[in-house]
Amino acid sequence: MKRLLPFLFLFTLLNTYAQQKPRKVILMIGDGMGLAQIYAGMTAKGGHLALERCPIIGLSKTNSADDYVTDSAAGATAFSIGQKTFNGAIGVDSTGKPVKTILEEAEAQGLATGLVATSSVTHATPAAFIAHQKSRKMEEEIALDFLKTPVDVFIGGGQKFFMKRKDGRNLIDSLKAKGYFVALSKEDLLKYRAPQPLAALLAENSLPRYSQGRGDLLKKAALIAIETLNRNPKGFFLMIEGSQIDWGGHNNDTQYIVEEMLDFDNTIEAVLDFAEKDGNTLVIITADHETGGFALVNGSLEKRTVEGKFITTEHTAEPVPVFAFGPGAEEFQGFYHNTEIYHKIKKLLLSH
Amino acid sequence: MKRLLPFLFLFTLLNTYAQQKPRKVILMIGDGMGLAQIYAGMTAKGGHLALERCPIIGLSKTNSADDYVTDSAAGATAFSIGQKTFNGAIGVDSTGKPVKTILEEAEAQGLATGLVATSSVTHATPAAFIAHQKSRKMEEEIALDFLKTPVDVFIGGGQKFFMKRKDGRNLIDSLKAKGYFVALSKEDLLKYRAPQPLAALLAENSLPRYSQGRGDLLKKAALIAIETLNRNPKGFFLMIEGSQIDWGGHNNDTQYIVEEMLDFDNTIEAVLDFAEKDGNTLVIITADHETGGFALVNGSLEKRTVEGKFITTEHTAEPVPVFAFGPGAEEFQGFYHNTEIYHKIKKLLLSH
Repeated sequence: MKRLLPFLFLFTLLNTYAQQKPRKVILMIGDGMGLAQIYAGMTAKGGHLALERCPIIGLSKTNSADDYVTDSAAGATAFSIGQKTFNGAIGVDSTGKPVKTILEEAEAQGLATGLVATSSVTHATPAAFIAHQKSRKMEEEIALDFLKTPVDVFIGGGQKFFMKRKDGRNLIDSLKAKGYFVALSKEDLLKYRAPQPLAALLAENSLPRYSQGRGDLLKKAALIAIETLNRNPKGFFLMIEGSQIDWGGHNNDTQYIVEEMLDFDNTIEAVLDFAEKDGNTLVIITADHETGGFALVNGSLEKRTVEGKFITTEHTAEPVPVFAFGPGAEEFQGFYHNTEIYHKIKKLLLSH
Repeated sequence: MKRLLPFLFLFTLLNTYAQQKPRKVILMIGDGMGLAQIYAGMTAKGGHLALERCPIIGLSKTNSADDYVTDSAAGATAFSIGQKTFNGAIGVDSTGKPVKTILEEAEAQGLATGLVATSSVTHATPAAFIAHQKSRKMEEEIALDFLKTPVDVFIGGGQKFFMKRKDGRNLIDSLKAKGYFVALSKEDLLKYRAPQPLAALLAENSLPRYSQGRGDLLKKAALIAIETLNRNPKGFFLMIEGSQIDWGGHNNDTQYIVEEMLDFDNTIEAVLDFAEKDGNTLVIITADHETGGFALVNGSLEKRTVEGKFITTEHTAEPVPVFAFGPGAEEFQGFYHNTEIYHKIKKLLLSH
């Protein structure tokens, strides 16, 4: 019997590890972040990105219900409700019916929840996790939806959809009445102290690009969100979007892509540092689609230079990589539809 | 004690599985097969490819020693010797020095070895596994190198480099003298019977494209190679190349890419069927680089149609996926340089 004990111990350890489920999930979406965008960032950083710390890689098929080439609304809704829907759809299925999102399901189970983006918080990707509208263009309606779910933290731009509305309402007052600390500037944000819920709307519409005044705000916002959500002993769900990688693609601007990739990867580094220390956090890094038909025709890893070219100012259809780190990461192996990301997160986070 | 037995059994099973090393490795290279090429083929097949049966996915960084954008010679040499070398190099390091390839190392350990391609066997990718030349253009010298290593099976094109040489030699006679069954046509190939070593040179230079007379020859050749090599109880190393996916990219011809992808994937299906039954075979499917800056701007999974566009007639720098199936597959997880594929194969196949 004594001779068996070490084996039994090892077996139990292996078994525990294999079945470990995270209490916290951070889903990081690089909008429009295809393989070439990743490698452009990697080149500019000398050959390595923090996302390489993820041991598990998968591939995600991105088509929407009505189009071979998805938009960001249908792409994010696939992640948020686990169903393919039509382009433009925000948190509704392919018939236009609202479906509870992973964020709302996490809320219902008592977990803390949050959304962080460098776009307006009402923009397609963050919106799809909390709002239910047939068109991504209905940003004032989407802003109203933020009042219907007690999301603990949201940080991004979008003041005008809350304050300068056609219906004349000032949703800032409504947010304050619901107990939110409302930050309308970086200075306000520095005054915020957890555990009060946080609504940070730091620009009229989208935040400025990294090199035009935003600086490392995404990383700071991610860390504020994590610190706040991490006070909930039941765990949390947090979505962080590097929104503007996509806009570099739409603009066919390699430099814009590179700086947004580097900013997103710096945020990834901080998030992985937290997850590594925490031990109970699963981090998933992926994209909704590729933008631009971006390809790298020349460059240098030594000089950290890259020459990119573009085929289109729109999105393309090719699959995008999925990177996973932490307990449950192995679930994200393989080649699957973007909708599986919802099902895998739900199984790991909400079926304890 | 009795109650512990099932646990012990399971533990032993798990442990055995975790440490299992394959006796046979099949490396399948889709030349120029980036993510868009894969998804073009997937679309034409209605949304799924056989390569999705691989549970493990990795990403490979493809730069060569002297260029951000690799060519197929340096790309294949990275796989065959585990070192980055200069573009054009065949089985030599970055100083031009010949280095023993994984195929030659497998031979030295008594394993069976083989090469199958739809190009000439002297073309960059197959050549890099058996020849040592400073330039891929030296195809007559490369043909001579085929006589220096007792490779058991090679199938592809390239008659002229063996028969119509500047030095006047007829290497067909030399091959016969070394005991090879030489096939110079599909009809000859049908007459071949294992276990005699096989040299099949089925065209003057490269084989015709799939739709112009080649048909399913790649799949048939792969199965002939497997059946022959599988007679060696020590195991085998086999490289199979879908050579012409790359040429579709160079020609900026989406239809060419699609048909070559489908042919390569049909071959993958047959190879995975063998590996699944065999249980002792590791299959790795990857590419040396992407070709064309190919992107998919429109299409339909239902109609199986795809509209592709190209940025260049040359190669691009973005990483390419790696798919792995069978014992040891988990070694191929993660994001690494193409040279790691050599080191992982060597560790798994040649360190028993």
